[in-house]
Amino acid sequence: MDKLELENIVREVLSKATNDAGPGALTAANGGQVKASMPLALALKLTERIEAKAAEWNMRVVTAVSDASGRPVAVHCMDGAYMGSFDVALNKTYTSIAFQMSTAELGKLSQPGMSLYGIQFTNGGRIVIFGGGEVLAYKGVIIGALGVSGGSAQQDTDLAAYGKKVFESELEQEVIKCL
Amino acid sequence: MDKLELENIVREVLSKATNDAGPGALTAANGGQVKASMPLALALKLTERIEAKAAEWNMRVVTAVSDASGRPVAVHCMDGAYMGSFDVALNKTYTSIAFQMSTAELGKLSQPGMSLYGIQFTNGGRIVIFGGGEVLAYKGVIIGALGVSGGSAQQDTDLAAYGKKVFESELEQEVIKCL
Amino acid sequence: MDKLELENIVREVLSKATNDAGPGALTAANGGQVKASMPLALALKLTERIEAKAAEWNMRVVTAVSDASGRPVAVHCMDGAYMGSFDVALNKTYTSIAFQMSTAELGKLSQPGMSLYGIQFTNGGRIVIFGGGEVLAYKGVIIGALGVSGGSAQQDTDLAAYGKKVFESELEQEVIKCL
Amino acid sequence: MDKLELENIVREVLSKATNDAGPGALTAANGGQVKASMPLALALKLTERIEAKAAEWNMRVVTAVSDASGRPVAVHCMDGAYMGSFDVALNKTYTSIAFQMSTAELGKLSQPGMSLYGIQFTNGGRIVIFGGGEVLAYKGVIIGALGVSGGSAQQDTDLAAYGKKVFESELEQEVIKCL
Repeated sequence: MDKLELENIVREVLSKATNDAGPGALTAANGGQVKASMPLALALKLTERIEAKAAEWNMRVVTAVSDASGRPVAVHCMDGAYMGSFDVALNKTYTSIAFQMSTAELGKLSQPGMSLYGIQFTNGGRIVIFGGGEVLAYKGVIIGALGVSGGSAQQDTDLAAYGKKVFESELEQEVIKCL
Repeated sequence: MDKLELENIVREVLSKATNDAGPGALTAANGGQVKASMPLALALKLTERIEAKAAEWNMRVVTAVSDASGRPVAVHCMDGAYMGSFDVALNKTYTSIAFQMSTAELGKLSQPGMSLYGIQFTNGGRIVIFGGGEVLAYKGVIIGALGVSGGSAQQDTDLAAYGKKVFESELEQEVIKCL
Repeated sequence: MDKLELENIVREVLSKATNDAGPGALTAANGGQVKASMPLALALKLTERIEAKAAEWNMRVVTAVSDASGRPVAVHCMDGAYMGSFDVALNKTYTSIAFQMSTAELGKLSQPGMSLYGIQFTNGGRIVIFGGGEVLAYKGVIIGALGVSGGSAQQDTDLAAYGKKVFESELEQEVIKCL
Repeated sequence: MDKLELENIVREVLSKATNDAGPGALTAANGGQVKASMPLALALKLTERIEAKAAEWNMRVVTAVSDASGRPVAVHCMDGAYMGSFDVALNKTYTSIAFQMSTAELGKLSQPGMSLYGIQFTNGGRIVIFGGGEVLAYKGVIIGALGVSGGSAQQDTDLAAYGKKVFESELEQEVIKCL
């Protein structure tokens, strides 16, 4: 068996492994293999549920879903959402991943006089300290994060909490495939 | 005449109206048609009124007027205005559009301990949380925003409120043409 | 029927038309009325078509769709897309709107020695000068812009051109409702 | 006459000159005296002439006028102007003041292989290297700068050259008052 033959066999095996893979396991644009922690299809399932609930609550929101490294996977702006909410929703996912807590929790710790006061001035202006950002995890494994922006702080907090619950319970089967 | 017929007639009239165009409907640089939500001529009428009032109040201000997407249409710096006010006036229009409220209102919600504390650190440093920025709307339709900077926070707040009132009442005829 | 009566009738019709609204005409978060130039539903129809074609061409891309003011409406990252493509796709839509031409066209004009050489250093680093960004217009009216990033410059150019064609021909019925 | 006497005389003359002042000499917001090198009234006279000529040439431009320190005094966006032109027009005035030459001249010197190649990467992305920016001077004294953006590079260059000529010849009487 010469070198070329061997190479071809290895390539075939790798290729098969990649195709078997889960929903997020794909060959990247340049051939490097990437296992998406948060596949687009899953992010969109979550976004769809968030948008349906937002409409029910008469909200117009920007919804962002990121992967476990805080990288955005999907961002949707409902018609009539605030222009400023794009940045806020995106950075709520960043913040949730960055410190592995909800933005509502971080908001409490970062008030003047509290232990983390000042964290809002770090990370190049990407830290959001009011509700609407949640870590998306399953049995302790972080899969990604969710950020919603468009209502009052309380509405955003409630909507993100709803999204987190949907993710962990109703989308459980899809989530498990990502682990 | 049933509802469908009526709708078709209205649609035709609207379509014609768009083609006839109002003061802000022009062929864009490359031939694409653009309907300016805030025509320059209207922005300058407002700026002129603001500057006359500022002079009366012994203020030297920067006045910025943006369109409904937060894009600046006119910026004027009165002689002797603060250098730093250019950025502030411009970003007061951005902020007012971004969250569809006056910067004075946002200022209340973004104090430490309040629900939106921290919003001032989002949107790439463009959020202003003291008075002087107002949404310019007419019967609920947002046409643009106004930002003034140069006096005390209270003076800026008063001057912007004056501008908003002039826009909605005294410039009503010009505003209606933009709808 | 005198002028005043006529004006009142027209105003009523306009008011009703605004309230009936098309797919993008919604009451904004704070009650202000906003007509989305690019409704989310339309942006997602386009994104879906782009992603199907990208998969067919064995590409993993980030797709961004903006409205007529360059504001992002939807951004999707296919599994395995480059991390750097999020910024590029988004800024391709910004560039296309900012100068009302495709990024491929601007790329020709901005080569060293050409008339617009240097435009790539303006607008805060948001100008993209290789293919993949297209203006989305219908009969001369700009509705938004499309940006794709993830393949070679030629692949991105081809994919964006495909998207533009789909938008103008196959989505024609949905597009017309936005005018 | 000793040194102190001389100093006092000079101080008195300077003080009187400042109090007599021209159209741009005003008490600043905080009481400090500021002599505007480019009064708003003069900037607007120039802008008005530029916009009339632009309309005649069927152009839709952003016009910016700055003072001698490169600080913007007035920026106007004609209806239908490119969104990206705001930044470009503003930075054409900055560039013209920064290196005391037109942006067309700087464009020649900053091509690859030329003596100033690379200057376009300095100054935080504010350098523009194609035509449309001109220094506004009178008998060698720099009063401010003009930046126009919205047409082809050639059109912008021609329009700025027209503006410079109007400033130096037809607005001569107003300009002299600023010296």
